[in-house]
Amino acid sequence: MVEPLNIALAGLGTVGTGVVRLIETNAELIARRARRPIRIAAVSARDRTKDRGVDLSRYDWEDDPAALAARSDVDVVVEMVGGSDGPALALARGAIGKGKGLVTANKAMIAHHGLELASAAEKAGVALKFEAAVAGGIPVIKGLSEGAAANAIERVYGILNGTCNYILSTMEDTGRDFGDVLAEAQRMGYAEADPTFDVEGIDAAHKLSILAAIAFGSRLRFDAVETTGISRVKAADIEQARSLGYVIRLLGMSEIDRTDGTARLFQRVHPHLVPFDHPLAHVDGATNAVVAEGNFMGRLLFQGAGAGDGPTASAVVADIIDIARGEKGAAFSMPEGELEAMEPAETGHRRSRSYIRFAVPDRPGVLAEITAAMRDAGVSIASMIQKGEDAQTGEVILAMVTHEGPESAVTEALRILDGSQSLAVRPLVMQIIEG
Amino acid sequence: MVEPLNIALAGLGTVGTGVVRLIETNAELIARRARRPIRIAAVSARDRTKDRGVDLSRYDWEDDPAALAARSDVDVVVEMVGGSDGPALALARGAIGKGKGLVTANKAMIAHHGLELASAAEKAGVALKFEAAVAGGIPVIKGLSEGAAANAIERVYGILNGTCNYILSTMEDTGRDFGDVLAEAQRMGYAEADPTFDVEGIDAAHKLSILAAIAFGSRLRFDAVETTGISRVKAADIEQARSLGYVIRLLGMSEIDRTDGTARLFQRVHPHLVPFDHPLAHVDGATNAVVAEGNFMGRLLFQGAGAGDGPTASAVVADIIDIARGEKGAAFSMPEGELEAMEPAETGHRRSRSYIRFAVPDRPGVLAEITAAMRDAGVSIASMIQKGEDAQTGEVILAMVTHEGPESAVTEALRILDGSQSLAVRPLVMQIIEG
Ligand SMILES: NC(=O)c1ccc[n+]([C@@H]2O[C@H](COP(=O)([O-])OP(=O)(O)OC[C@H]3O[C@@H](n4cnc5c(N)ncnc54)[C@H](OP(=O)(O)O)[C@@H]3O)[C@@H](O)[C@H]2O)c1
Ligand SMILES: NC(=O)c1ccc[n+]([C@@H]2O[C@H](COP(=O)([O-])OP(=O)(O)OC[C@H]3O[C@@H](n4cnc5c(N)ncnc54)[C@H](OP(=O)(O)O)[C@@H]3O)[C@@H](O)[C@H]2O)c1
Repeated sequence: MVEPLNIALAGLGTVGTGVVRLIETNAELIARRARRPIRIAAVSARDRTKDRGVDLSRYDWEDDPAALAARSDVDVVVEMVGGSDGPALALARGAIGKGKGLVTANKAMIAHHGLELASAAEKAGVALKFEAAVAGGIPVIKGLSEGAAANAIERVYGILNGTCNYILSTMEDTGRDFGDVLAEAQRMGYAEADPTFDVEGIDAAHKLSILAAIAFGSRLRFDAVETTGISRVKAADIEQARSLGYVIRLLGMSEIDRTDGTARLFQRVHPHLVPFDHPLAHVDGATNAVVAEGNFMGRLLFQGAGAGDGPTASAVVADIIDIARGEKGAAFSMPEGELEAMEPAETGHRRSRSYIRFAVPDRPGVLAEITAAMRDAGVSIASMIQKGEDAQTGEVILAMVTHEGPESAVTEALRILDGSQSLAVRPLVMQIIEG
Repeated sequence: MVEPLNIALAGLGTVGTGVVRLIETNAELIARRARRPIRIAAVSARDRTKDRGVDLSRYDWEDDPAALAARSDVDVVVEMVGGSDGPALALARGAIGKGKGLVTANKAMIAHHGLELASAAEKAGVALKFEAAVAGGIPVIKGLSEGAAANAIERVYGILNGTCNYILSTMEDTGRDFGDVLAEAQRMGYAEADPTFDVEGIDAAHKLSILAAIAFGSRLRFDAVETTGISRVKAADIEQARSLGYVIRLLGMSEIDRTDGTARLFQRVHPHLVPFDHPLAHVDGATNAVVAEGNFMGRLLFQGAGAGDGPTASAVVADIIDIARGEKGAAFSMPEGELEAMEPAETGHRRSRSYIRFAVPDRPGVLAEITAAMRDAGVSIASMIQKGEDAQTGEVILAMVTHEGPESAVTEALRILDGSQSLAVRPLVMQIIEG
């Protein structure tokens, strides 16, 4: 019998217990595919006494996850603790420092410290892998770094947060408002008690920054992702968008911007209008999907379960199998030192069609003031819908779609209107992606 | 500078010239991702004098592709000649026999001789890779054999032939009939002069048999794919399906069937009814898409360009980059000797909802005869649409959807009706897949 690959699991929550269950359930199949068995040598979490629904008695227990890295009977450490710093980062550094491979599901840690860890892993000659960190069970890291490796990719975007997509598609199906659907999602366990990371787009931004680095071969710049969440999207926006032929989705969108002659990195998480005939318009519920456009392959789409114990464990164990097979590829598809440093793009000169929604008091002159500001800023309006007064707030919803033009013009129009009595609420701008 | 990977290209048609163009255009990027340059050492095709739109003067030319395998300056042979046997197979055997890696886009050859070649490649210790053979630019071989490696997959299906999907979605958009759209597709170069392989489902069957082997870890059984093409689908079927909430797609469908206690291999290429809310219902034009269902990852979808010079070259060069990186994985995700021999499944005991379309003469008693046959065979009818007489043929189109039940009952009903005066044309049965 060939030598097993010995692994240690840190973190036994949703993902960690999923990994234990998967490795036990599919042990025989994994050994055939990995060409050697995967053996769990030791596990660690905070509370040894907690019932986790899996039998851990046959694995060694360590109270301190850092101790896993020091064990001589461990080849690969699997980090499923979470958090960008703290014990997860200490463990990751420790494991690589001791010459162990590292597999992690931790997007926050990779978004903040991925380059440092990749460089350390290269120096130590060990694998660093994080398929589960982006889009859960979808093998998109592998798809881009290996499957699409022959392509210059200039654009990668997608639905990267299942909680937001669940909320938006439920709002769409039921006509209910954001706060209402969020509260229900929390009761049902689809959203965290503190939903900030999800609904404010930070989780999607972590994932987008990782995807962009891999797709473009650029240095990871989480700090440069412009991030807006979905908390300001109203049921009325969804209704207006639908009547114009769109659905609303929170997209992470990243492109190489070459408008000023050098390659700059554009990264934005923002709710977008997606036309009905675009594949992302049909991605509902907690599903994730990623689109990448390459100069030879054209448009490629990956879609599947973005979170949950089973799908996330599937991605974690795929990484472990790769390591068992002897794969030692660079974490970001090329050596860390070869990733290109790109400055963030100026978004002002980007051209797009935009949706702008105003909530305005129902009195004369408001429409004239808004349209004058648009004219003065050079924004050309393609269509406009005004919806009758809201019974509760007395506001009128005014939604317009612009012709294609520089985003800076829209910003300028809103600057002109800033502080105006005509605006009951700060306007909401969403970009429209083309089919 | 590290040593380049030296490759030889056999076949310089659509795919071969695409590969030359890709390797030249993205050379610098490929070297960063592969961590060494890819160098074309020699090329071969039939006609040396043909203008192929790419400059081949800097590459050695061989009149006989078999000579590529014998060159000492070649590490990997890339077979893009085509055909299940003949020069392609001779070259593949020759290259592996001489200890070269083999990359091929040839689904016919892999469907017929993939196991033999995989076994030879293992013995020789060389890589055999064929990402481009299935679904063109979509990295679905890698997605299943590596990305989904941790899962027991019990079902894999998809849209595997772009020509058929183009024809069906054009029929859908325009209301025109099969022959008409096919003729136009041929004029426009979307379909071959001899379209048999595409429209009769043979090309899709090649791909399905390869996917099934990889997904299930089963021995490849192209001979056991039940294959029906799209030539009998009428515009009226598309219209009826739409009114029932479905589109028609040619699907390759493969499952492990455990109804009699042992794992049996079910493989079928057939036009199916796909409900509007299924992701495959939105795959239009020449696009391909593959769905795989795993016991931990859930449902995963890959979608993209299934053919054409750029996408296919993207997949060929991804394989070459993998080899350059030192990857030497088993061709079918596990050693050839470990693939499980599965007998073909009996399709009779499969349960599904079916669409059955009759074209019948417009006279009394016909409906009674058909419904009696259904009753006698135990087929339960869920809904039925009758469409007025066809002006040209005088036929009435009668479409019914059954409740879920054994497919054998539908077969039996049609057997009872066989030879009946009530049938102007042999009825067309299509399975309905669930959302
Ligand atoms: N959940 C998903 O669907 C999903 C999807 C993709 C990626 N991820 C990522 O996977 C990671 C884990 O997520 P999760 O949902 O599994 O989290 P979780 O359910 O909260 O589990 C976290 C685990 O880490 C342990 N832990 C926390 N602090 C620790 C410490 N200081 N020392 C030792 N152990 C500690 C916890 O121990 P106790 O159980 O003893 O408290 C728990 O077992 C995160 O990085 C997350 O972003 C999750
Ligand atoms: N086209 C696609 O989109 C696509 C997609 C996926 C997979 N594939 C597969 O890729 C392979 C190639 O397809 P293709 O579309 O590129 O075919 P193609 O355009 O017909 O090109 C075939 C090439 O092979 C050469 N050839 C044929 N017989 C030969 C012989 N006896 N000796 C030497 N060379 C010979 C031809 O030489 P001459 O040019 O000198 O005649 C031509 O260059 C096939 O296996 C196909 O199934 C194609």
